[in-house]
Amino acid sequence: MAKDAVAEHGESSKAPLVAAAGVNRAVAVVDIFLRFIAIIGTVGSAIAMGTTNETLPFFTQFIQFEAKYSDLPSFTFFVAANAVVCTYLVLSIPLSIVHIIRPRARYSRLFLVFFDTAMLALLTAGASAAAAIVYLAHKGNVRANWFSICQQFDSFCERISGSLIGSFAAMILLVVLITLSAFALARRH
Amino acid sequence: MAKDAVAEHGESSKAPLVAAAGVNRAVAVVDIFLRFIAIIGTVGSAIAMGTTNETLPFFTQFIQFEAKYSDLPSFTFFVAANAVVCTYLVLSIPLSIVHIIRPRARYSRLFLVFFDTAMLALLTAGASAAAAIVYLAHKGNVRANWFSICQQFDSFCERISGSLIGSFAAMILLVVLITLSAFALARRH
Repeated sequence: MAKDAVAEHGESSKAPLVAAAGVNRAVAVVDIFLRFIAIIGTVGSAIAMGTTNETLPFFTQFIQFEAKYSDLPSFTFFVAANAVVCTYLVLSIPLSIVHIIRPRARYSRLFLVFFDTAMLALLTAGASAAAAIVYLAHKGNVRANWFSICQQFDSFCERISGSLIGSFAAMILLVVLITLSAFALARRH
Repeated sequence: MAKDAVAEHGESSKAPLVAAAGVNRAVAVVDIFLRFIAIIGTVGSAIAMGTTNETLPFFTQFIQFEAKYSDLPSFTFFVAANAVVCTYLVLSIPLSIVHIIRPRARYSRLFLVFFDTAMLALLTAGASAAAAIVYLAHKGNVRANWFSICQQFDSFCERISGSLIGSFAAMILLVVLITLSAFALARRH
């Protein structure tokens, strides 16, 4: 339909092009908004996990009972993954602003799709590895003789469980961001 | 440049359109090829993990020492995630074939981007949760009093470690597939 218009009138094709630009501009605004929420989610997760520390009010001659996120490598990876994704999201915002100004940009959106996807994989890996260990801390595993540590470290367990929420929210937002970028690419006429 | 050609000659814009269709057709062929490799990777992972079973040649009066993937919920999730992603990949191949026939399809590619991204998140979650537990099985954790089980269950540990490879390969392939779909969308003139 739009193509016929180009062939016949040349100029009359401007209208759908402008409409497409408007939609893509709206997509870019939503994109920035979602990136800000994802930044808050990842920062919150990294801080909640990174500051978790519980010392029990009793100790033996040899050991003081203390739980820190850095005792478990999966939690260290979780904090690192959240920090990297958060840094990337901050750096990607200028590019999203460019998309408001130039709504028909193509290869910069492709660039965002690629890096958003890579960051989604990194964040999911961190959140999921941490979730597996949090689950183990809560339930333990009888077959492997791994005992739950949440009976002793109650507030530690609550904090590490809560810190996962921000990451999982950011994961969903990244899936939406990738789909939005692809949608903007699909709309271009 | 191409737009000027449309305005001036109308018909001469056919050449870049055909070229774009050719590139998108090649992308669709590569897409199918990568999906097949990813299917092999996820099937291999699911089978390697799902058939892992080790019974130790000694037992006490009360316990026979046996290790199975289903003893650990993360491994069950790993098998399920691989099975779901594999099923999705098989079902997505007809759509990829449609893209060879109709290389300028847009919304079906957008559909693939969305579901590929969701499947990437699912597969990464499964692989990463399993990897966290495999790491724990190998190294144990002194602070949480979780002991390594790999000294006893040697071949079990080798199998579960190996089964991760197919999933991580499929993850990389899915990132490439998403980027390829976005590239095909960005190329459309």
